This record gives sequence, C-alpha cells and structure tokens, in this order.
Amino acid sequence: MALHVADLPYAMSKILKGAAVIGQSGGPTAVINQSLVGFIETATQQEVITRVYGARHGVQGIMCGDLVDLAKESAANLEAVAQTPAAALGSVRLKASADDVAAMIKTFKKFDIRYFFYIGGNDTAETAHIVSLEAAKQGWEMRCFHIPKTIDNDLKVTDHCPGYGSAARFVAHAFQGDDRDNRSLRGIKVNIVMGRHAGWLTAASVLGRRTGKDDGPHLVYLPERVFEPTDFLAEVKATYERLGRCVIAVSEGIHDADGKPFLQTYAEMSGSAMAGEVDSHGNVQLSGTGALGDALANLIKEALPGTRVRADTFGYLQRSHPGDVSTVDQEEARAAGRAAVVAAVSGQYDHGTIALRRIEGDTYASETFVGALADVAKFTKDMPAHFLSGRHDVSSAFVDYALPLTGGITPMADLDFAPVELLN
Amino acid sequence: MALHVADLPYAMSKILKGAAVIGQSGGPTAVINQSLVGFIETATQQEVITRVYGARHGVQGIMCGDLVDLAKESAANLEAVAQTPAAALGSVRLKASADDVAAMIKTFKKFDIRYFFYIGGNDTAETAHIVSLEAAKQGWEMRCFHIPKTIDNDLKVTDHCPGYGSAARFVAHAFQGDDRDNRSLRGIKVNIVMGRHAGWLTAASVLGRRTGKDDGPHLVYLPERVFEPTDFLAEVKATYERLGRCVIAVSEGIHDADGKPFLQTYAEMSGSAMAGEVDSHGNVQLSGTGALGDALANLIKEALPGTRVRADTFGYLQRSHPGDVSTVDQEEARAAGRAAVVAAVSGQYDHGTIALRRIEGDTYASETFVGALADVAKFTKDMPAHFLSGRHDVSSAFVDYALPLTGGITPMADLDFAPVELLN
Repeated sequence: MALHVADLPYAMSKILKGAAVIGQSGGPTAVINQSLVGFIETATQQEVITRVYGARHGVQGIMCGDLVDLAKESAANLEAVAQTPAAALGSVRLKASADDVAAMIKTFKKFDIRYFFYIGGNDTAETAHIVSLEAAKQGWEMRCFHIPKTIDNDLKVTDHCPGYGSAARFVAHAFQGDDRDNRSLRGIKVNIVMGRHAGWLTAASVLGRRTGKDDGPHLVYLPERVFEPTDFLAEVKATYERLGRCVIAVSEGIHDADGKPFLQTYAEMSGSAMAGEVDSHGNVQLSGTGALGDALANLIKEALPGTRVRADTFGYLQRSHPGDVSTVDQEEARAAGRAAVVAAVSGQYDHGTIALRRIEGDTYASETFVGALADVAKFTKDMPAHFLSGRHDVSSAFVDYALPLTGGITPMADLDFAPVELLN
Repeated sequence: MALHVADLPYAMSKILKGAAVIGQSGGPTAVINQSLVGFIETATQQEVITRVYGARHGVQGIMCGDLVDLAKESAANLEAVAQTPAAALGSVRLKASADDVAAMIKTFKKFDIRYFFYIGGNDTAETAHIVSLEAAKQGWEMRCFHIPKTIDNDLKVTDHCPGYGSAARFVAHAFQGDDRDNRSLRGIKVNIVMGRHAGWLTAASVLGRRTGKDDGPHLVYLPERVFEPTDFLAEVKATYERLGRCVIAVSEGIHDADGKPFLQTYAEMSGSAMAGEVDSHGNVQLSGTGALGDALANLIKEALPGTRVRADTFGYLQRSHPGDVSTVDQEEARAAGRAAVVAAVSGQYDHGTIALRRIEGDTYASETFVGALADVAKFTKDMPAHFLSGRHDVSSAFVDYALPLTGGITPMADLDFAPVELLN
C-alpha cells in the first residue's frame, strides 16, 4: 500500500528532531498491535526520531511518565506481539481534561518528545487534536497523529477501520456455524452483536450467507433503524412459519424512535432485574451481559409458546479472538502504523489521522492517506442507506464493501440429498 | 491411524450383504461431518454394501423413511461438507421408545438395511444398542455401530471424543483473547463454558495459558467440584487484589453438594426472572441464555462495589465455529467414520462403538479400536482427580492430555517493557 500525501492545512516542511511516544486507547481489536509494531519498526529507522517510547495505558501512562523503551524490542518478539490481540501497551478509556493535557505536555518536555502517536477511535483522535492545539499554544513544537482502530467501523474520513475486518470475519463465521447448528436442531436463535450506535459489525453476520439456500441470518436488526417489538415478533413468526427455523442478528444498540435502547424500555416495562447495570450517565450496560438476548428470547417465547428459543451474546469474543483473524486486516493495520511515522517525519503535517481508501481495480487493494484530525474527532459514521435493504436486511452493496476486508469467507456446503430409489 | 480389531463378544465372521444407513444425533460439532464423510467414502467402496443411505434428522428419518442416497454425492461436495460444522443430515434429540424402534426395523426391512451407523453421544450409543438387540429378537440380521461425537468429551471407552479437540481449541483461543482484553482494560471477567456434567471443555480454557506470566483464566470452576459461592467470592477478591484483574472460567454445570445447579439456587434465592427456562424435568435451561454469567457477575458486583465486572456466555459459538477448527480433530473424526465401516464389514462384530486410543511415542498419534456399546451407553465420564488441581484449577497432566487434540495453541506475547533511561 502506497502512502498518499494529500494537501492539508498546517503544512510544514522542516525537520523536527526528538523522541516519539505511542499509546493505545479504547476497546481492543485483534490487530491493534499490528499498528503498534508497524509504528515501531518504522520509527526506529528514522534519523530524526531519537527515542521510541511506549506509554502504558495510553494517556494515563503519558500523564504519569509510565513509559517503556520500544527500541529495545527484538524483531522476533515484535512479530509475536503483532499476532497477539488487545493492546500490548495496555489501554485506557479516558477523555483528557485540560489538567490531563497539561500533565502530558510536561512529560513531553521532560523526555523531549516531539512526536505523539495515538491508536484508537474517535475519542482518541480528539485527544490527539487537543494535545496538538495545547502544545502549539505553549510553543512546544510537536506533531500528533491518530492511527484508527475500532471493530465498530464507525470512524469518518477512512473507508474502513483496522480491527473491523477481523471482527467481521469472526462474526460471519460465527453466524455460519450457528446457522448450521440451527438447521441441524431447528428452533429460533437470537444472536446479539456489538455496536451501540452503528450496525457495521452486526451487518457482517450476512457475509457467509449463500443466496437461494435459506441461510441465516434471516433477519438483521441494526441501530440505523427504529426497532419495533411488534414488527420484530411478526417477522420472526413469519420466518419461523416459512422455514421451521429462524436465525436473527441483533445489534446491541437497537432502540426506539427516541433513541432509547430497547433493553431499557424492556426493563422498565417488565420491572425486571434483567435491565443489567446502569452507568453514571443512566445508560444501561449493553456489553458483557446476556440481558438483551435473554429479553428478546423471552418476548419470542411469550409470543410463540413451546418453541425452542435460544439467545447468544457474542460479547468480548468477537473483538479479540486470536484463532480467526483477517490477513487483510492485519496487513492494513500494520500499514497504518508505518504510514503514521512516514507522514509525521515528512514535515508536511503537524497533525493528522491515517486513513484507508480503496484502489480502483478488479481485486481489492487499499492505500493510506492523511486526513484532518478535526474531521474524525467527535464524529461517528452510521451505515449509509444504500447498505441497508428493507426493514431487516443489508444490501449486496454492503457485502461487496465488507467481504474483502475479512480476507474471504468460504461458503458452507449442503449434501445434495439425492432421493432414494426403492430396490426390488 | 490404524484400525485395531479387538476381541469382543458377539463375534461373527460371515459375509452380510445389504444396504447401510447412517444418522447424526445430538448437539452439533465442528467435525461431525468429517465422520459422516469418512463413512460415505469407505462404505461406497464395499462390495457387500449395496446402497449407502443417509437418514435425515437421525432416528426420526429412519422411523418415517426419510432417507437420501449418499452414494450420489460428488467427492468435491463431500470434501466441502466435511469442512462444514453441524450435522449435514440434520440432527435430533430423541430417546427411541419401543414403538420407535419397531418403526425403525420396519424401515430396515423395507430398504433391506443390514448396517446401521449412528454418530452421537452416549444416548446415541444406547439407541444403537437397543436397535441391535431388537433386530436380533426379530431375527433381522444386521450390524449396528456407534461413531462418537461430543464437544463434552464425556464418553467412556474412548480416550477422547471427536468434536472435543475443535471446541477445546475455540475455548482456549477465546480465553487467550479475552485474557489480553482483560490485561488491556482490566476488571473482573466471568466466562461461562458448556458442560452440564463434566468439566472437560471448561478445563480447555487453560490450554493457551503461559506459566509465570499471570495469564488467565486465574480461576477455573468445574462441575467435578462442589461450587461454594462464599469461597468463590473470596477467591475472586484475592485474585483481583493481587493482580488488579481476574479472568474466571465457569462451567455451566456448577452445582451445590446435592447436585442442584447454582443457577437454580440463585433464582430461588433472588426470586429473579434471571432463572431462565425450566424444562419438563424441572431442570433450568443452562445453554442459550446469559443467565448464569449475569448471576455470577451480580454476585461479584455486590461483593466488590464499583468494580468493572463483565460476563460472557460462550454458548453455541464454541461448538460449531468454522473459522477455528483443530486439524487433529478433523482427521480423527474422519478416521472414526472410516473405521466404523471397516469394523462392520469385517464380520467380527454385530455391534460396537468406534473408540480412540493414543499410540505411545514422542509425538501425539492415535488409533481407532472397537469397544462394546454397552460400555458407552447410559454412562458419562467426568474428569479424573489427577486432571484437577486445588479448588479452582486443572493439572499439567490435563494440559498434556488435551493440548495435542487442539492441533496446538500458539502462546500470546508481551512486550519486554524495557525501562526508559532519561536523556542528558
């Protein structure tokens, strides 16, 4: 993948000599360490980068000076770390306050850090942006880059996010297996997939589905649409009557017309302990609990008494399973880490985000380019209308978009079921 | 793998010519179709086997004559089916009654079926046994063979069960990924693994754990031990205080000293809707719901207020994920299907179960042999005492036993975290 150098504001073209630090932030992915290793192997080769530091647990490590020397890592260990899911440096969920940023810049000055790289989602991009602005205000010359990472695939600017392809691969395989399971023993099966605001990962449930074979998922519910329990039950019932079975993909973020999560509505309706944990903002906890799946299964059981109904919540398995990773995703995550260093030392930007775009052609290929932090920070990207189909499915345009990112999904196979001719 | 022909009761040595039928029963595995394909490719080459039939949905298909002609399958399609998880012929959960067996034998006579093969667990072996005895009583000469299959690994006679190695691989990888996730963001994580009566699959959670690296799972709760909620909370607390995090593997079948499932006790205690479904025998539903994980997470949250506690229930994902299958398990399942045909046409047995045993040597290898149906039917096999360690772990002997069956688990890697030396 080539690095495309776009014209951007804040263009600079002078040499900046000093140490570099990298941190990891937010939820893990299967390839977040590919970006880290891509960064390390490139940064250690730059003359202008005097030291290559890692911050433990992201900005937290920078604030308190908890740094490690990444230049001392062996190539063999780096390769093993690249294959290891979840943030090798440790992660953090923290929106940096003004005090936090002040503490960070103090560390930058102490260690002569002139390059700051931060791997994560849109909050991470925002932190990089704030740090960049504050450093400029204090006259501390430095360059700040965001390297995208999220299984949610909901960042702007980039065509897709490193981490998504592997999670999509896992989800597609899980639905393939579960659809075979459901074919084999029949009944109604609800599977809850991560994604509070955007349906990208839930949509990946269809990527191993064959056409014309009655493969599941038969119904796909995304947060891009309003969830109507009555419609849901009617659609489940119709599918079950038609096929004698039904596999359903549900995003954890399904909600009513006012944006209220369905699980919260259900809990209030039923006065049930199934509501799960409520955080300090009053939001119900959607991940790390089976509550939503069990709530939907209960609804179906009430509507279709005696039917075998089961629910699984994919939970944390889908974001860091080391046994089923997309090679395309691995390569792109690695490339994004490398590209961030190249962009930073080029002198053309004082900050930016590394984004991916497709290269036109018959086979899938991508290249990196540099986008503006302000375009990524604070925003998320829902699935566009042309990736949706009807009330409970996704379009073939989505499949064309997402399938290459998984590294490819092999279709499942049926027996031919040739009829028996009687002897005699 | 060689087929070892042991001496057994019911030895026969005459030629029996007729059709063969095969069925699949019970919960799916990732390799149950390997056994089916091993059977088909061997049965179609036997002169004495006139037709090769498949029964849809096991004994149900035999009872109502719902058979397909498996000899018409192409080799290429069979190979694709072998790679496809869950019963390609459809499965069934049915203990055959006397009437059911009578209906089956009627079908055998109608289609001149002299060979019956049934892939499944101990109930399946029992069905094969009952059918064999009833056919003999009616003077219908036939041979009945059981081909083992279960992710639970709880069958007698065989060293291990086809299907277990792949499920164990998935569980080991899931815990590796989840342990990295927990290292990265910290907190307490409960993972519920299948296994109502035996802990084999939950024990597989340790197979990717390195020694001396504080890898999880840090606590492993199996149905082979009595589950004491008070001890559990004390152990979780101690681990969390020591490491600042804790990953816990829990079998769905944990129970009190009287054998009552913990989830049932919890539901009665809390009067909670979390109890989930109760079946016709009064047993609470353990699979296909997140209730047990959520119950344990709630207990921990009450004991350690403010701590980040999450629970995942691996559910059906662990038994039929097509993206992460053990090649050793695939080969052994295939070999068991082939061996069943060889044993049946050999004339040495009128019924039996195909079992696996290890071949002594430096590297793992196995061979099949024929065991007696009566030794498999009705029984299950718990983990032996020497595979357990202390109150909440498994032994290295268990790791030596189980690791080869997964096809191997690559260890995860840490950064070296070399300390930073300040400049000047």
